[in-house]
Amino acid sequence: MTNTEVQFDVSRIGPALIPSPMRGVCFTADDAKILYDTSLSSVQKFLEEGKVPPQMEIAGPREKIYFDPSGLRCGIVTCGGLCPGLNDVIRSIVLSLYYHYGVKTVYGFRYGYEGLVGLQGQAPIELTPENVSGIHEKGGSFLGSSRGQQDSAEIVKTLERLKIGILFTLGGDGTLRAAHAIHQEIQKRGLEIGVIGIPKTIDNDISYVQMTFGFETAVTEAKAVVFAAHNEAVSAKNGIGLVKLMGRDSGFIAAYATLAGGEVNFCLVPEVPFTLDGLSLALQKRLQTKGHAVIVVAEGAGQDLMQASGETDASGNVRYNDIGIFLRDRIKDHFKKIGMEINLKYIDPSYTIRSVSANAHDAAFCLLLGKNAVHAGMAGRTDMVVAYWNQQATHVPISMAVSQRKKIDPQGWFWNSVIATTGQPARM
Amino acid sequence: MTNTEVQFDVSRIGPALIPSPMRGVCFTADDAKILYDTSLSSVQKFLEEGKVPPQMEIAGPREKIYFDPSGLRCGIVTCGGLCPGLNDVIRSIVLSLYYHYGVKTVYGFRYGYEGLVGLQGQAPIELTPENVSGIHEKGGSFLGSSRGQQDSAEIVKTLERLKIGILFTLGGDGTLRAAHAIHQEIQKRGLEIGVIGIPKTIDNDISYVQMTFGFETAVTEAKAVVFAAHNEAVSAKNGIGLVKLMGRDSGFIAAYATLAGGEVNFCLVPEVPFTLDGLSLALQKRLQTKGHAVIVVAEGAGQDLMQASGETDASGNVRYNDIGIFLRDRIKDHFKKIGMEINLKYIDPSYTIRSVSANAHDAAFCLLLGKNAVHAGMAGRTDMVVAYWNQQATHVPISMAVSQRKKIDPQGWFWNSVIATTGQPARM
Amino acid sequence: MTNTEVQFDVSRIGPALIPSPMRGVCFTADDAKILYDTSLSSVQKFLEEGKVPPQMEIAGPREKIYFDPSGLRCGIVTCGGLCPGLNDVIRSIVLSLYYHYGVKTVYGFRYGYEGLVGLQGQAPIELTPENVSGIHEKGGSFLGSSRGQQDSAEIVKTLERLKIGILFTLGGDGTLRAAHAIHQEIQKRGLEIGVIGIPKTIDNDISYVQMTFGFETAVTEAKAVVFAAHNEAVSAKNGIGLVKLMGRDSGFIAAYATLAGGEVNFCLVPEVPFTLDGLSLALQKRLQTKGHAVIVVAEGAGQDLMQASGETDASGNVRYNDIGIFLRDRIKDHFKKIGMEINLKYIDPSYTIRSVSANAHDAAFCLLLGKNAVHAGMAGRTDMVVAYWNQQATHVPISMAVSQRKKIDPQGWFWNSVIATTGQPARM
Amino acid sequence: MTNTEVQFDVSRIGPALIPSPMRGVCFTADDAKILYDTSLSSVQKFLEEGKVPPQMEIAGPREKIYFDPSGLRCGIVTCGGLCPGLNDVIRSIVLSLYYHYGVKTVYGFRYGYEGLVGLQGQAPIELTPENVSGIHEKGGSFLGSSRGQQDSAEIVKTLERLKIGILFTLGGDGTLRAAHAIHQEIQKRGLEIGVIGIPKTIDNDISYVQMTFGFETAVTEAKAVVFAAHNEAVSAKNGIGLVKLMGRDSGFIAAYATLAGGEVNFCLVPEVPFTLDGLSLALQKRLQTKGHAVIVVAEGAGQDLMQASGETDASGNVRYNDIGIFLRDRIKDHFKKIGMEINLKYIDPSYTIRSVSANAHDAAFCLLLGKNAVHAGMAGRTDMVVAYWNQQATHVPISMAVSQRKKIDPQGWFWNSVIATTGQPARM
Repeated sequence: MTNTEVQFDVSRIGPALIPSPMRGVCFTADDAKILYDTSLSSVQKFLEEGKVPPQMEIAGPREKIYFDPSGLRCGIVTCGGLCPGLNDVIRSIVLSLYYHYGVKTVYGFRYGYEGLVGLQGQAPIELTPENVSGIHEKGGSFLGSSRGQQDSAEIVKTLERLKIGILFTLGGDGTLRAAHAIHQEIQKRGLEIGVIGIPKTIDNDISYVQMTFGFETAVTEAKAVVFAAHNEAVSAKNGIGLVKLMGRDSGFIAAYATLAGGEVNFCLVPEVPFTLDGLSLALQKRLQTKGHAVIVVAEGAGQDLMQASGETDASGNVRYNDIGIFLRDRIKDHFKKIGMEINLKYIDPSYTIRSVSANAHDAAFCLLLGKNAVHAGMAGRTDMVVAYWNQQATHVPISMAVSQRKKIDPQGWFWNSVIATTGQPARM
Repeated sequence: MTNTEVQFDVSRIGPALIPSPMRGVCFTADDAKILYDTSLSSVQKFLEEGKVPPQMEIAGPREKIYFDPSGLRCGIVTCGGLCPGLNDVIRSIVLSLYYHYGVKTVYGFRYGYEGLVGLQGQAPIELTPENVSGIHEKGGSFLGSSRGQQDSAEIVKTLERLKIGILFTLGGDGTLRAAHAIHQEIQKRGLEIGVIGIPKTIDNDISYVQMTFGFETAVTEAKAVVFAAHNEAVSAKNGIGLVKLMGRDSGFIAAYATLAGGEVNFCLVPEVPFTLDGLSLALQKRLQTKGHAVIVVAEGAGQDLMQASGETDASGNVRYNDIGIFLRDRIKDHFKKIGMEINLKYIDPSYTIRSVSANAHDAAFCLLLGKNAVHAGMAGRTDMVVAYWNQQATHVPISMAVSQRKKIDPQGWFWNSVIATTGQPARM
Repeated sequence: MTNTEVQFDVSRIGPALIPSPMRGVCFTADDAKILYDTSLSSVQKFLEEGKVPPQMEIAGPREKIYFDPSGLRCGIVTCGGLCPGLNDVIRSIVLSLYYHYGVKTVYGFRYGYEGLVGLQGQAPIELTPENVSGIHEKGGSFLGSSRGQQDSAEIVKTLERLKIGILFTLGGDGTLRAAHAIHQEIQKRGLEIGVIGIPKTIDNDISYVQMTFGFETAVTEAKAVVFAAHNEAVSAKNGIGLVKLMGRDSGFIAAYATLAGGEVNFCLVPEVPFTLDGLSLALQKRLQTKGHAVIVVAEGAGQDLMQASGETDASGNVRYNDIGIFLRDRIKDHFKKIGMEINLKYIDPSYTIRSVSANAHDAAFCLLLGKNAVHAGMAGRTDMVVAYWNQQATHVPISMAVSQRKKIDPQGWFWNSVIATTGQPARM
Repeated sequence: MTNTEVQFDVSRIGPALIPSPMRGVCFTADDAKILYDTSLSSVQKFLEEGKVPPQMEIAGPREKIYFDPSGLRCGIVTCGGLCPGLNDVIRSIVLSLYYHYGVKTVYGFRYGYEGLVGLQGQAPIELTPENVSGIHEKGGSFLGSSRGQQDSAEIVKTLERLKIGILFTLGGDGTLRAAHAIHQEIQKRGLEIGVIGIPKTIDNDISYVQMTFGFETAVTEAKAVVFAAHNEAVSAKNGIGLVKLMGRDSGFIAAYATLAGGEVNFCLVPEVPFTLDGLSLALQKRLQTKGHAVIVVAEGAGQDLMQASGETDASGNVRYNDIGIFLRDRIKDHFKKIGMEINLKYIDPSYTIRSVSANAHDAAFCLLLGKNAVHAGMAGRTDMVVAYWNQQATHVPISMAVSQRKKIDPQGWFWNSVIATTGQPARM
């Protein structure tokens, strides 16, 4: 998508005419925006062509809101895999609705969109400042989560039946696409229900969002696992520590864990192809000179090296073959073939990374995300996600957020830094 | 300083004519810049007036460099109080000089600028990839640090005698002012020595730098202390946990620890004045309704309430009276006077926060800072700091970085969020 | 107290005639005991004199119990300063009473013995498996705590009025003495109420109890603080890190933190006297050879060097002068006098150590302590504490537990190991 | 083995005639012992039969030693899998030899017994206080480790060639058996070389040793993994968290992690058989009432349920089938068969637990173990391990230590406590 195609206009249910009940607050101007692209030449080009350069709406409390808080009912749902900070966001939304706007009725739907469909799920929980107090100290989702598609029409029926005014939905790509479908169904039926997404992707791969919650916590945990792999590697003759980390389409966790630790010798990500021969020979060279090596591989890396599984999971994501197991076996084969004794330790930390509670950074970030989601919802915005761009909380239309995956640029300074840190060959 | 006065032109020792020895790297254009202010109206105003809007130079490796790496000697010095990540930056500079540019001689000066002055300090350490390996896992400064002014002329003599081409200096406001003086002395003597600062301020209060290393780690530690204070408060009748945190001029650590934890009821920062009566009454009300309270106070808060000490420390910073002890005593007085039994526990975590090793985020950040400092130095930049602006590593002249302190805006969204989180009165 | 004077006979309210409702359990024989002294010669000496060597009763579930669980009401109270694991013990007692014996009514008295006296405290909380679920993940005391004496007669009146059958009391020396007084008052009034103590002393200084809960967690936290002090010390010229740790009468926390860390050069405990001159000279020598030093001082050390304060706190403990502040100032004086520049950083971690949640070891230990307290109470034992001796949970009469403080033997292997680790002079 | 068969006489190379160079130390009497069995009746039975009850020799520094420290050379080797604290023990041995006895030459053999055999391994490292300083802060083994048998005669030839006086060997069952064989070879050849074992078993399953280093650290890590599994389980409909932990023959880690955490519903250990049907039905019942469940399984549990692999690893240990994968699949089968939707998350933390650095408790414990190993070696003891019994460091002949595995007693108070905590059926 080129710069001329990006646009960030956010949908509104209707005009915001009701004065906000918030007091002593510095309100954000209703149309406050920041430039999307911060290079002067890009801005000038637009202006010279008589066009307005793309801008993102700034998040924050508005002086006039759309919904009358008295009698407003809201709903929250968490979908997909766990991510550190889910409970922080849930708590922040409930507290902000309650204390900032006086909204007393907030339903927590159980186990993802399932909880919004007829009797399939369990009854929603009424969320109050009391029962969400303390949930942020725990990992997981207080509401439960699930993968899988549900019928938008059924979901909207539930929203209508429960008289929900704003639905807050925490989830990744699939969840946000479904949120967009719910919004379209709402429009079709002429209802006045807002849909506000809070992007949840531990891989940090949502477009037009520079930082998603839980990512830093995940990197922190990943760093500790890499350290374990390093300890194993140096403690054995020709020791190899092989760690599989999350990252289906984007290798940010693997790359940041590499930068944060300083022990990784090979970082393999989906964005940068490699061959088995290339890796094996570089690894062999490393062992012959240093006697040990640490490899970090994102789960989506090297998929072309394996036979496609052809399956998808309940969220519709392509089910990947296990690159960790595959590499473990192929590396062993290589060194067996050349008659070199190695000691490979394979670590797949999996669920232990995503199920911890948010670290200090993510906790503060989730608090702000939750508040800004509430402000957006109360101001009548809909079909959007709360994003983060150049140190600002912003609003981004769901369609833009899901338009493509954010990926590491193999030509950019960031990947440059990663390979400069590992010392791995730029091409393998 | 208004927008029209900010300018970010960085000094250069001379033209960069030597091809970089780096291979397989995507170089940053020598004049790459980003807009300082990301509001379209600001940019348009400049353009309409026929002016160029302020821009910051983007950091990164340049295709042409100024110094011939063969025979180049560099120096590193750390000054002022400890900050998580010092060793990460030292290590990153050494590794980058060695592996990216082939610079073999790097001196680590001992105990701050003292180590650059005659025989007063100890002899410098020769830094190599071997002896900096592993230092990033430890807190403190591998080189040692100290406060205090030293004679610029003496320092430059030492640089000249040791044939140093680039001096990397890690420190805060005072250190950077001294670095600027060193640069001026270098110019006066017609020498070709670069001076590159890496801003070190645990308080995150350097201007035109959105994030400094060690800050997030400090917030993480501070959050744990606040949690301890909370546990003490809830475990006693009318329990009060009072925590003093760092923040001489800016309350960012106190404010972020408040957002990250969710247990703080009163956050007191230098930027927002309060009265003893206002605080006491709000605290009394809190105890009467909830039975316990947590107060976080930045060390620079409420200085107007105490008699000025009039002293300065070795770095020239005004020595503050101890607001923690002061509040502890005044709060006890208040409740004694009104005959209400309280249990106040005062915690001053002091050195335990700043002396830990960098967390995952800061570790990665320090790595990148160190590399960009090296790139800037090799490209012939001088009298500048490596900064961070809108998700970009940038170059900022020292004079700009020390022009004023970065502070919390009491009218802005961030402070809004803090008081919305604590529930404290906007004015006390 | 010589071996011939120790005796561990535990009081019983009356004969245990009711079959335990526990199923599938291996019951402990009602009179199961272990030897107190495990040297053969000691045992033989007793036997040769026709005496029974001292033995401790082994804790555990009994086949016959004293109280009929149906209708039994129990109470729990926590007194004195915080200690990691308080909530674990509370939770364990409630769960064991409920699930093992079917006791449905358990009162949690608020804020120490105050909560047992008339209307002075707040109403007790009814404790259930639901409301104690999760409390073990938090530090502090779920019930609140307080220091201070209360009238035993009043306390027993409350117990009688609420029809309490067993009172579980968590506290240190003073709390246990009070528990003994409560027991005596119960006897005087001919009531059938059991009093079971769970010794709570973060200092690990209760006699005839080899390990108390929270101690290991405290050492873990203390180790981290010592590490901070070490980082400060090595990062400054003639850097001194001075850490004050808990330990009023016994220096176990200081000593174990010294063994656990390996960075301490001087460990000062109440059991081993030292002079200011001795310390100053040894410290000077250390600085002159190594350039930095770490000192750990237990709060009760060196009290003879300061003027006595003559005060006591609400628990009746002698209020000590602050040895940390005192040493900080005297050390600075010494080096000022001899004209040697030092950089001393003083750390008093205080409440941050005692208010954390229990680590894995203490969590498991607290679980077992709580269960054994319940088994003892149900079996009709009273006026005793649940102790730990030679890898066994045991019963010890309160009078023995409070007969003296457990202290480090300055002649023993343990202190030997400490000074061998620090390298400090055996006498200073 | 019955009590009458246990005996703990430790071999001595020869009479200790040389005065220890240690000063200011309280020496342990050369024949100091403690009773093995602390029940009075057991002791009396022996005495009545005119026999001496079994006693263990107490560890500690002796006034007279066997080896002349001047010119003595020692060796250290670490074998088998990693265990937290290996580096702490290595460091403690080196420091104690150097500072307490003045032994200057200590060889660290690389990669287990391999490093003691001809040219197969790498050359040994000379260990000094300088190069072992700081190694205790890292996990893994500074010397490297390996599995596998080596020829005792070859090993003894190496010891002889290098003029080693004492060999310290850190390892588990297999390593200790090999150490015994080395001792026998030494005897056969009439050499004067001591062999001192330090039992290394993360499973804590060595006989006559109540506590081995690294175990508590492992439980701490395991507790965190169980917590992750719990978070996964409660966040999904019919969520099951299944965790495989270490424990080939003994389930101590699984059992203690269960006690420490409080979230485990089923704890499966090698000592307590279960059937698949029993487990499935109990699990089904749990899900139907509570909606989620956490299962912890030790790797050696339920081996009878799977077909034997018949293989052994390089250390000669039977290679077990993977009970974790097996249970994961069988549980899924069960619920598929009965048409009940579950969400099972399987976690195998494997190497991440054993490769961390020692926690505070284990760090102090390792320090003492290392010192006592040195004292034993210097005093001329051989063919023994440094053990821990009833709060005392002791000496135990290798033959006793490897005579059988220490296991959980399914009838004892400890297992009672575990199943009382989980609420699982006593028999499944």
